[in-house]
Amino acid sequence: MHANGLVEGIRQRNIPSLARAISLVENGRNGYEELLSALHPTVGRAHRIGITGPPGAGKSTLIERLVQAYRAADVTVAVVAVDPTSPFTGGALLGDRIRMDALTLDPGVYIRSMASRGGVGGLATTTREVCDVLDAFGFQRIIIETVGVGQSELAIAGSADTTALVLVPESGDGVQVLKAGVMEIADLYLVNKADRPGADRLVQEVEIMLGIRRGNAFRHVAPHHRPTAHPTPGTAKGEGEAGSGAWEPPVLSSVAVKGEGVEQLITGFDAHYAHLERSGQLVAMRRERLARHTREVVDRALSNLVWHDRDGEARLAAGLDDVVQGRTSPYRLAHDIVRDLQEGSRR
Amino acid sequence: MHANGLVEGIRQRNIPSLARAISLVENGRNGYEELLSALHPTVGRAHRIGITGPPGAGKSTLIERLVQAYRAADVTVAVVAVDPTSPFTGGALLGDRIRMDALTLDPGVYIRSMASRGGVGGLATTTREVCDVLDAFGFQRIIIETVGVGQSELAIAGSADTTALVLVPESGDGVQVLKAGVMEIADLYLVNKADRPGADRLVQEVEIMLGIRRGNAFRHVAPHHRPTAHPTPGTAKGEGEAGSGAWEPPVLSSVAVKGEGVEQLITGFDAHYAHLERSGQLVAMRRERLARHTREVVDRALSNLVWHDRDGEARLAAGLDDVVQGRTSPYRLAHDIVRDLQEGSRR
Repeated sequence: MHANGLVEGIRQRNIPSLARAISLVENGRNGYEELLSALHPTVGRAHRIGITGPPGAGKSTLIERLVQAYRAADVTVAVVAVDPTSPFTGGALLGDRIRMDALTLDPGVYIRSMASRGGVGGLATTTREVCDVLDAFGFQRIIIETVGVGQSELAIAGSADTTALVLVPESGDGVQVLKAGVMEIADLYLVNKADRPGADRLVQEVEIMLGIRRGNAFRHVAPHHRPTAHPTPGTAKGEGEAGSGAWEPPVLSSVAVKGEGVEQLITGFDAHYAHLERSGQLVAMRRERLARHTREVVDRALSNLVWHDRDGEARLAAGLDDVVQGRTSPYRLAHDIVRDLQEGSRR
Repeated sequence: MHANGLVEGIRQRNIPSLARAISLVENGRNGYEELLSALHPTVGRAHRIGITGPPGAGKSTLIERLVQAYRAADVTVAVVAVDPTSPFTGGALLGDRIRMDALTLDPGVYIRSMASRGGVGGLATTTREVCDVLDAFGFQRIIIETVGVGQSELAIAGSADTTALVLVPESGDGVQVLKAGVMEIADLYLVNKADRPGADRLVQEVEIMLGIRRGNAFRHVAPHHRPTAHPTPGTAKGEGEAGSGAWEPPVLSSVAVKGEGVEQLITGFDAHYAHLERSGQLVAMRRERLARHTREVVDRALSNLVWHDRDGEARLAAGLDDVVQGRTSPYRLAHDIVRDLQEGSRR
């Protein structure tokens, strides 16, 4: 099916068209950029929610409950689960999600797992593009789930409008990472499995850490970033936001397996979205996201040009022995490849 | 000082020249690629050792002890600490390292902290280039320290010849990540703070996980990857290595604060390096590393060309309103920017 047929299928909310469109985008097959280009004017209505946390934090169960609650309120919802599985397990994390399949009989729900593809940058870009397809299709909420407490995992979840970090009382490393300030701030924190020992203490610890952060952030605020009732559009999420009109990330609790705390979490998501709209940050954030995405599409196109359309890979193979022997350097070889590309475009 | 002067200074093992060369490379200032190009023929003598693990695993103390042990054996050693700190803490992790400064009075030791710069890909590339400078200077061991248990943290540490993962009995998330198979396999595992409760169990858990992995890896081995006494050069680290001539990652214990287990760790590093040399993997791995590095230098050059040397950023700014309003798409704007770049090179 051509990209044109898929655009029409998505306009008509045809599920097989949606599945094919996502596969096209995920695998970067012929015509995927034309498809995304055609869908672009209808993208931007969904509220995108990133959820991350260590493995074992109960994210799958939590998301299952979130989906049920959204459907009970007649809100449509898509879930994109990003699984950076190693070749050794080959997607073992997906096992968790099999029981969610029952939900997919409902046309108001769509669940898709994405495997790691290419570099980290590549996966983040592709995840955003898959969300664009789901957004154009008309899903009202798009939940992006990533697994982990590292920089790249939060970077993917953090490309959403709202980001939640899920911790559990036994999240040793997660809390350490948080303490060390390695992790960018989330918009909401959730202590799941809150019926376990240590949950109250974890809530307090996170609140104290957020208090300290706010203190630091406040000290570093430049005069033109002084907190106001309407924060300057373009202000990065969570930066310089201490003050009356600012978003203070709440620390919520849940026992997802019993459905406890799910409604409060949804209320928190809605409150954050309303805050983004009211403050002008939603418009500014989405504009910045489109600029960044355009830059990434340009860089990807240039990389494809040199390594696929032109003979960059052959030039590299021909020159690699000289690099290994020290007769030339990676920099001289790279310079030659770039020069050939520019001269090639003159022909 | 010009790049030429720095090359000469590094050849003469001049420490101020080394510091200036590293700053030049880290900040990507004018002439840094010429410098690296000139140093390239003398790169490749150091044993690069990546050490990662969650915050609080005691990596700084461990590395301090490693440096002392290497110096006692008259081996020179450089440490590159990669700190992906957030703007909120502004390098709090460095506090840990202040007491290491005493070691830097010894000219056989060099310690350098790198802050996160640009994207994750950018930081990994720059870290490799800083290690190249230290390698060309003549350090016999280069220790690359990263903090975290995510994909990007291990990717940076994993660009070394030998990678060690440090865990502690309270490494809740680290072990979960390991169990989930999110993490690529390391060459050595170290349970630090081994005098704490739960250490023996953690050693056993890691050994069981490694056994399961080896079982999986073995099942997936294609006929031409059948384990032999001399694994095929070019085989990826840890893949298809079950068998007589293969490297079986040891699980070691230490109490770094008391200096216990440090000698065994060094013996493990040396054994792994000897294995890499004997099996031909060192040559194959370094060849692949040079190919990957050349690709990254080309991609970086093309990105610099479009966003800095040419008017890509101005074209983006001029077209962004149309993208935001849906009158054009990121893909059409990106296509225009790439076309302008190619036409520009024709003039």
